[in-house]
Amino acid sequence: MEENNVITIYKNKAIVNFEGRDFLGQIGIDSRIFNALQGAGVSVGVISQQAIENGISVLVDEHQAETAVESLRKEFEKELKSGIVSQIYSIDNLAVIGLVTDNFQKILSELQKNKIFPLLLNQVASAGRVNLVVSDNQIDKVKNIVETEIFGKVKTVHLVLVGHGNVGSTLIEQILDSSYDIQNRKRINLKIIAIANSKNIVFNKGGFGSDWRQKVLFGSSENTLQDLFQFVKENQFENLVLVDNTASKDFVKNYPTFVENGFDIVSSNKIFNTLPIQEYRNLRKTLDKNKKRYLYETNVGAGLPLIDTIKLLHLSGENITRIKGVFSGSLSYIFNNFSVRDEKFSTIVKEAMDKGFTEPDPREDLSGNDVARKLLILARELDLINEFSD
Amino acid sequence: MEENNVITIYKNKAIVNFEGRDFLGQIGIDSRIFNALQGAGVSVGVISQQAIENGISVLVDEHQAETAVESLRKEFEKELKSGIVSQIYSIDNLAVIGLVTDNFQKILSELQKNKIFPLLLNQVASAGRVNLVVSDNQIDKVKNIVETEIFGKVKTVHLVLVGHGNVGSTLIEQILDSSYDIQNRKRINLKIIAIANSKNIVFNKGGFGSDWRQKVLFGSSENTLQDLFQFVKENQFENLVLVDNTASKDFVKNYPTFVENGFDIVSSNKIFNTLPIQEYRNLRKTLDKNKKRYLYETNVGAGLPLIDTIKLLHLSGENITRIKGVFSGSLSYIFNNFSVRDEKFSTIVKEAMDKGFTEPDPREDLSGNDVARKLLILARELDLINEFSD
Repeated sequence: MEENNVITIYKNKAIVNFEGRDFLGQIGIDSRIFNALQGAGVSVGVISQQAIENGISVLVDEHQAETAVESLRKEFEKELKSGIVSQIYSIDNLAVIGLVTDNFQKILSELQKNKIFPLLLNQVASAGRVNLVVSDNQIDKVKNIVETEIFGKVKTVHLVLVGHGNVGSTLIEQILDSSYDIQNRKRINLKIIAIANSKNIVFNKGGFGSDWRQKVLFGSSENTLQDLFQFVKENQFENLVLVDNTASKDFVKNYPTFVENGFDIVSSNKIFNTLPIQEYRNLRKTLDKNKKRYLYETNVGAGLPLIDTIKLLHLSGENITRIKGVFSGSLSYIFNNFSVRDEKFSTIVKEAMDKGFTEPDPREDLSGNDVARKLLILARELDLINEFSD
Repeated sequence: MEENNVITIYKNKAIVNFEGRDFLGQIGIDSRIFNALQGAGVSVGVISQQAIENGISVLVDEHQAETAVESLRKEFEKELKSGIVSQIYSIDNLAVIGLVTDNFQKILSELQKNKIFPLLLNQVASAGRVNLVVSDNQIDKVKNIVETEIFGKVKTVHLVLVGHGNVGSTLIEQILDSSYDIQNRKRINLKIIAIANSKNIVFNKGGFGSDWRQKVLFGSSENTLQDLFQFVKENQFENLVLVDNTASKDFVKNYPTFVENGFDIVSSNKIFNTLPIQEYRNLRKTLDKNKKRYLYETNVGAGLPLIDTIKLLHLSGENITRIKGVFSGSLSYIFNNFSVRDEKFSTIVKEAMDKGFTEPDPREDLSGNDVARKLLILARELDLINEFSD
């Protein structure tokens, strides 16, 4: 078909909803509806009526919405009074996007992950054609997502990075260094749109480049989540990922809010996974509900693929009875060096800190808290119900 | 809402399609359509018209389909002649299922995996209500899938097991032994509906039990794929999985056909992954297209989670430069025993065979073919383009 793979968008549309339980489907109702609309000179786009339903929805031009509602209210005056027709009203500021796809489900899934829920959706299989009605202010985001799925356009992933200390700044440099490769190999454009620490945040809707340190130094404003969520909404950024490279006990409390605002989460911060089991489980429920993911492979075993492997074994029904290993690179380094070298303990701890082996606060390592956290994280992957205090 | 979570099904429906490019959307066309249907006494269910479209589809009772088409053809006689309306026709033997869900995308995904593509689909977000029009002969399957997703009904996975030698029969026993546990823990009912080897097959739509050996012995008929595909279609089995526990070079050629018929594949058979790269890639394309999976973790490293771990590392951008290990349990056993015990080589090989350590044909191990296959499988996971002959 010549129209294959064309995306068409009409803006400034409105939906007129006509609701009447057990009323539609009677012979002649639909012709009364469309006669009334014709009489009022209303041009009708998408029509959606369900067989087992409470109503019919028709898409009209925004400037005709009021006329359409009035003409229907007049035609069904009697039925509105008696309550057979419960209500007739319009929803403005809508756009409709039409597309041809054989993978509609994938598009719907991507839209859902980006918190876009079409007000109306209809598909006719024979033509592979789908019409989606969404808010006017979501249409750019929808278009980007649809183009990525249909035309294989490079997918842009928008990153918000929190924490730019040792781990955080290394990751930023790695992302910038490998962005060209990643785009070529995976057709994914990793765009860093915000860099923050616990106090400040700096935005860049075009994406940060190698001069990010200057921008962080001179461009930062106070870090409020409201500003951040406002920023991503205004710019209709799709595919949002929060990367938490802090070791902050406070910041992790925001994870559920991020998920509800459409973010996936990647975290080197172990704290969330060691919060009381109720919070641990609630976040997973929130993730499920919002179709978002929370990845934290580096929490235990650093670069080794430990958590995923254990999860996989557990999920496939293996009974894991014992996990053996050295769970602290920093303690290994410190004790190994202290036992063979003639240096003060504090010197060696300082050295481990400088090499980036320890947590930002090395007392977390020395007290055993860090090892305890790692063991708790693994235990919970095995569905054991343990707490940090154990 | 009181109607939440109710699934409603109407059978014996037909769709009347009205197609006319650049014609619909003109003021008054819809009222002509519905007036004509009203005049003919046709009751209309689902209506779906797209804004950017070629047509309008309305659902009617099957026995009124002909009347509906005739009335529209009469009303639009002039436009049909001039070609503005290209065609008006009906599709019979349909059913419509109505449901309320906040996870429509998941249902659509499950339907798609089961090769069910609704002819018409419409969703009104405000009510969370979806109507799907499907073939009458798919409606039971659709109902099962929808009930699993909406009501959390136990999900039945229908298994077709090919190969009931050493590995195959052990797996059958394991499935039967653990089916109660799996149903409790995962809410999945593993149902073995067919057991085959290269020559024979026996069906059991109720699912095999502990007497499967008798049934295989006495109930088998010649193994033809046509019979099998006919059997699963007739019974509208959802969630089909082929389990290949043969070491057959011929049987693997059927994998693409199974995928096209809606099967996921689980295989201990290594052969497919060592076929020429073109076939290797084509199967993966077919899998992608059909949203099916092909799992073969036991191909290398038996029960160790090797393939998945390597895949994971590779996908996350790690550069894997070397994999070291012992790639043959059978050769290890044979040589270790031969070097310390005073036995004939053939005795020890026989012993390894009896213990189930070797391939069905131990020459595959001794010739090095088996190790070569394993290495090739790993190499291809890393996107290397190697052939078995290398």
